[in-house]
Amino acid sequence: MDETAGGSRPVDFETATAVHRKRRRPLRAEVVSALEKVVGPEHVLSGRAALEVYARDSWPLAALRVHHGAELPLPDVVVLPGGVAEVSAVLEILYEHEVPVIPYGGGSGVLGGTLPVSGGVVVDVKRLDRVLEINDEGLYVTAQAGILAVDLERALARAGLTLGHFPQSVDVASLGGLIATRSAGQFSTKYGNIEDMLLALEVVLPGGKVVRTRLAPRSSTGPDVKNLFLGSEGTLGIVTEASLRVHPRPEKRETQSYEVADFVKGLELIRRVMRTGLRPAVIRLYDPIETAHSFKGLASQGRCLLLFVFEGFGRLVDLEASAVDDICGPEAERQLGPEPGRHWLEHRNIVRALPEFMNQNLVVDTLEVAATWDRVADLYRTMTERMLKVKGIISASAHSSHSYTQGTNLYITFVALGPDLAAAERVYYEIWEAAMTACLEAGGTMCHHHGVGLHRTRWMPAEHGEALEVLRRLKEALDPKGLMNPGKLFGEVD
Amino acid sequence: MDETAGGSRPVDFETATAVHRKRRRPLRAEVVSALEKVVGPEHVLSGRAALEVYARDSWPLAALRVHHGAELPLPDVVVLPGGVAEVSAVLEILYEHEVPVIPYGGGSGVLGGTLPVSGGVVVDVKRLDRVLEINDEGLYVTAQAGILAVDLERALARAGLTLGHFPQSVDVASLGGLIATRSAGQFSTKYGNIEDMLLALEVVLPGGKVVRTRLAPRSSTGPDVKNLFLGSEGTLGIVTEASLRVHPRPEKRETQSYEVADFVKGLELIRRVMRTGLRPAVIRLYDPIETAHSFKGLASQGRCLLLFVFEGFGRLVDLEASAVDDICGPEAERQLGPEPGRHWLEHRNIVRALPEFMNQNLVVDTLEVAATWDRVADLYRTMTERMLKVKGIISASAHSSHSYTQGTNLYITFVALGPDLAAAERVYYEIWEAAMTACLEAGGTMCHHHGVGLHRTRWMPAEHGEALEVLRRLKEALDPKGLMNPGKLFGEVD
Repeated sequence: MDETAGGSRPVDFETATAVHRKRRRPLRAEVVSALEKVVGPEHVLSGRAALEVYARDSWPLAALRVHHGAELPLPDVVVLPGGVAEVSAVLEILYEHEVPVIPYGGGSGVLGGTLPVSGGVVVDVKRLDRVLEINDEGLYVTAQAGILAVDLERALARAGLTLGHFPQSVDVASLGGLIATRSAGQFSTKYGNIEDMLLALEVVLPGGKVVRTRLAPRSSTGPDVKNLFLGSEGTLGIVTEASLRVHPRPEKRETQSYEVADFVKGLELIRRVMRTGLRPAVIRLYDPIETAHSFKGLASQGRCLLLFVFEGFGRLVDLEASAVDDICGPEAERQLGPEPGRHWLEHRNIVRALPEFMNQNLVVDTLEVAATWDRVADLYRTMTERMLKVKGIISASAHSSHSYTQGTNLYITFVALGPDLAAAERVYYEIWEAAMTACLEAGGTMCHHHGVGLHRTRWMPAEHGEALEVLRRLKEALDPKGLMNPGKLFGEVD
Repeated sequence: MDETAGGSRPVDFETATAVHRKRRRPLRAEVVSALEKVVGPEHVLSGRAALEVYARDSWPLAALRVHHGAELPLPDVVVLPGGVAEVSAVLEILYEHEVPVIPYGGGSGVLGGTLPVSGGVVVDVKRLDRVLEINDEGLYVTAQAGILAVDLERALARAGLTLGHFPQSVDVASLGGLIATRSAGQFSTKYGNIEDMLLALEVVLPGGKVVRTRLAPRSSTGPDVKNLFLGSEGTLGIVTEASLRVHPRPEKRETQSYEVADFVKGLELIRRVMRTGLRPAVIRLYDPIETAHSFKGLASQGRCLLLFVFEGFGRLVDLEASAVDDICGPEAERQLGPEPGRHWLEHRNIVRALPEFMNQNLVVDTLEVAATWDRVADLYRTMTERMLKVKGIISASAHSSHSYTQGTNLYITFVALGPDLAAAERVYYEIWEAAMTACLEAGGTMCHHHGVGLHRTRWMPAEHGEALEVLRRLKEALDPKGLMNPGKLFGEVD
């Protein structure tokens, strides 16, 4: 675990990305011409304003740098192919000319996963935005990867169906991005995470080969090819199309909340609910800080809010609500009825904009980890304690929002003081280092659903141990020239 | 799809395996000595009787050859390592000396997946048979890969838990084999298939490197390493340990059956049940031939039996039974009550021994495929029609036993006449060819849960298309010398 010892680790963006920025090579004009020939000149962007848009995703550190007037690496050009054949032709050209490729969907990632740290060409798939088939009998949908999650959900709603996948980024995230980052939605306890939904995909490999996996409810014909691309974060290819499980729209929805004495008690109640085998759509537990912040006036000071949403087949919803009440009612301080759940449903995707914080010299970020039930209470204590020791931190609070029979996630928000860029970056990197190291030492996984991107690569060796070697061999097998989204996911370069 | 056109395909075992048998090289004495040094001479078997045991798994064609006195390729030696360190040392030696490795668990595979077609060393993991941890709080178990499924289940039962995984081979299959072949159990509709259970694993790569994946309820830290080995059938490494989700033992179990007019009607009822989101533990639908054969006196001639088992949380069991009755009751010819389900629960793992059939010159095998609901009725018709056209076939019957919201599997049994080995092999290969080709053309997947082994490799190009290239690159990345279970899974050698 030496690799996670904080001492000599880089504590600013420039140092952390130096090795990648050094690899930048000028993009030759002939490559741009070739790309223009494939997608049309109007779909190749090279103006400064456009390049600045694609220089960042939703990573708070990138926003911080922009706020302080610091530079971010720009891509050389951005191409917007209009279909899989164009994606294939683009990747063929870029691979032949050894140009880095940065696949781009909604740009809603929060870990720098699309930052063009070695320059190169951003391939934005947003023009691949069609729903290709809604199959009501087989309960699946096939759509192109550039469609926004919200548009896919709207198309399904018109057909009386739902994907059941509602990440907070639903309005801005693309389907391909959900797959590439191994997304989890707010209703995951019932509907599963993206890996539980994916039935088949089409992906363009580096070099341009188009691969489609066979659509089937289940298959045993070797390792699951589509699974290789789940969580691949643009480092193995570009997802262009996917088929996903869908569900009839819920007949009924109920919500019910409890006030519990402390966070660990709340975790224990969730564990007991999950153990029944019932699957409420949403289970959320907030620590006292987040309860006070998000449910003002709805729960008592110093207590934790435990919130359930049940939806689906009507009689099952009734059973779930009643069984959960049997478990939580006697152990909770108070039953809070449906109001906190309604409040959450209404406000769940509203987040305070980063500029508000930055204008007050505050550094804010969230990080989400997960562990089994036997470890998660310890994880909560260890991580928050360790984070709160970092000089400059103001608060670290947590909620649990994705539960399983085996354990749950912790979604931790921290606020720190960073009066200038250097101080802000220092406190940012130090808090992350404290959090990730504590998480891994306490037996958690360093990431539940935001992915690795650029920022979490430094903890990949500690997360995976020798298994990282397997991932690196996979990378080399599919992207031997190392051109796909360089610097992301696979850990620091030796 | 030219590759699936029957014309020039090999129609006997000798032809189908010639390319692999040609690769056989004598095993040098120094390698055997080195192996003996690692595992102890008593754990290296080289007697003819032992080698004959390991020359076959439970593939009916292998049994047929033995029955007719024909040869099967023998391994050079069999080693039985006593722990992961020994597995690692054995793989290091064999890789260095370029000796084929055939990982071996329970030997219950039915597609020749452990046949040593190029000779080499069988590595039997049955001595790795310990349960390492049962974690009741986190509802997971960690066990070594050589433990039999039945012993693992017994250990869990003593702790008030269940894995919920009951393949027909439960008494003979090993945990590692279940993972390597992507197993499905009879109660999969509730508990999921092996891929839904696997939380973490330890695997020894070719060359001896030991890789362990991190135990977590869920993680988004790149492509899922453990998933690479699910369905890898011994071609990428040897699984030595695994952690799996478990469940509290069911509070209650109910069973309920219906007689339906025809198979397609029965499929439609299952589809409607699955659409509710409820998950009966077992849903089985038998066509008229199998209904008559397996439920003599319990259902009317010419009708199909539709059988449900519900188990788990008591109130949920009641709800499921009642909701299923609301759907099936009005559409079925008759409600048959609990008796057929009880009969099935009692007799489900009894199969007529192959020798009985072979003594009557009958060739019998089963094959299981899957498709989405919109395709499965057509799949059933097309496959059985096409199979019944093969000269020498006597019957082809089917049941559905693993259902999903998206579709279901078909488990097809065929009986044919094969008076001598040549005739038996001919009819065997021709029926399989007809079945697999029809399945793939009708949009199914050629395998639901038995795996690929040796026999199904010939249809891998048609199953996967360009995606097979991804699998082959994965193979080369992890096993560059091509020594792990040669001839299996990855399709015919060019």
